[in-house]
Amino acid sequence: MKAKVYVTLKTGVLDPQGQAVSRTLGKLGFDGVESVRIGKYVEIEMADQDLGQAEKELTKMCEKLIVNTVIEDYRIELDGGE
Amino acid sequence: MKAKVYVTLKTGVLDPQGQAVSRTLGKLGFDGVESVRIGKYVEIEMADQDLGQAEKELTKMCEKLIVNTVIEDYRIELDGGE
Repeated sequence: MKAKVYVTLKTGVLDPQGQAVSRTLGKLGFDGVESVRIGKYVEIEMADQDLGQAEKELTKMCEKLIVNTVIEDYRIELDGGE
Repeated sequence: MKAKVYVTLKTGVLDPQGQAVSRTLGKLGFDGVESVRIGKYVEIEMADQDLGQAEKELTKMCEKLIVNTVIEDYRIELDGGE
């Protein structure tokens, strides 16, 4: 089964990479851009298992390794049995 | 309006960061993990405009700056009028 984890910087946390992209887009002539924030998108291929169990495992993985919970939020999405 | 861009490495392109995370998850005792691939998740806040027009602009932004189209794929998602 496949899991997708979206990791974003918490509101209020400075995002210099996003600011740089935003500024550069402005310079390239894209006037409509107001702000850019850059996060991570993680695809995890896991052994098939119970959905609830998988979600618990994924939460642990995020809290322990993938996400810096001090400055980042995350959202887990699970595609059952692919 | 808000746009979300998901950037992923093309199939076949090596992902050392993903491999490192995958290996580390294994060492932490998460046995079910088969593979991990890490991409980018970009949130772009834009001036309100026609959806079709916005999508065209976003495609240009991706091709010109945000995405390395040689090794990366991308998908654009648009939330109309937020």
